[in-house]
Amino acid sequence: MASGTKRLPRAVREQQMLDAAVTAFSANGFADTSMDAIAAEAKISKPMLYLYYGSKDELFSACVARESGRFMEAVSSGFDLSMRQRDQARTLVREFLRYVYENSDSWRVLYRVAVGSASFAHIVTESRNGVTAMITDLIRRGTTTEGASDVDFELTAVALVGAGEAVADRVSDGGIDLERATDLLLSITWRGLRGVNVHDDDH
Amino acid sequence: MASGTKRLPRAVREQQMLDAAVTAFSANGFADTSMDAIAAEAKISKPMLYLYYGSKDELFSACVARESGRFMEAVSSGFDLSMRQRDQARTLVREFLRYVYENSDSWRVLYRVAVGSASFAHIVTESRNGVTAMITDLIRRGTTTEGASDVDFELTAVALVGAGEAVADRVSDGGIDLERATDLLLSITWRGLRGVNVHDDDH
Repeated sequence: MASGTKRLPRAVREQQMLDAAVTAFSANGFADTSMDAIAAEAKISKPMLYLYYGSKDELFSACVARESGRFMEAVSSGFDLSMRQRDQARTLVREFLRYVYENSDSWRVLYRVAVGSASFAHIVTESRNGVTAMITDLIRRGTTTEGASDVDFELTAVALVGAGEAVADRVSDGGIDLERATDLLLSITWRGLRGVNVHDDDH
Repeated sequence: MASGTKRLPRAVREQQMLDAAVTAFSANGFADTSMDAIAAEAKISKPMLYLYYGSKDELFSACVARESGRFMEAVSSGFDLSMRQRDQARTLVREFLRYVYENSDSWRVLYRVAVGSASFAHIVTESRNGVTAMITDLIRRGTTTEGASDVDFELTAVALVGAGEAVADRVSDGGIDLERATDLLLSITWRGLRGVNVHDDDH
């Protein structure tokens, strides 16, 4: 073609390499993905790949940084403290699950591959802590229960984030209707956001 | 001592090696734990360790199998369909979190180390699916909502198991009161168990 791969600007080529790497890591994990496989997926030579990313570690790190940033951007774009709490919860859950639905490779790289690696888990942990902090804030604002402490708010947020991740992981496997998953997760989340109930008086 | 290590029966020594391995893997993950370190922790020679477990993979596999079995036994000992649903939920949550609280190394090996490894993740997945199936059953029995499907029951169970795992992981780090965590998780779980609400009518 007229615009052969050699003419591509560096930034474009970098993104193409990262796209190929995310696809490969998502499918086969970190240990079982070779630089050869990524180069083949990106339709470039292996020396070229090494020229841009000096090692598999470095390439994976760049993948995790990019995907983590995209994920946080998608989720936090739905965060708006001026919304009613109910609408806020719906928006967060919807944007979160939509991201996973539309970017299942990205989700798998972060949630399945990076979390299992001692060197990269901290990046995912930071994203998770960011989301947990948002949710903690929402719960604190919505709670009127006497006697609830910051520990309760945070632990409830931890539980809701865990629920969200588990549902998202199922969504990323396909076969689950996105709207239905959103309604279900919202229903559970909303019950949690209604307020922390430490006294178990739900009889 | 009179009963030197050489006199120990094979079964006892195996358990000691597994204890040492669980401690080491829990602290440092799979890749960064050496057979040397495990032998040192178990106070035996490395050749002896290799005599019992031919490779690090085999040893880790034995750890995961033992801890996974212990975990499932602890949780399913609290499963009794003749109990009132409310008591059933409380018992399951309490036994689950107590296990994690009292066996944080075991939990970390399963939840943090094994899930991140392509070769061992399936063992944890099987345990998780077993627990999810129990919870799905509980939800189905407790649901009166019209129009809820098996997919809804299962996805709700997935969410609750995810919430439970996230809270448990926090509990395993210490600094969280076990009773308080149990009450909080039960409160969230109970709201989920009350029945699947797919129509978002919680206004």
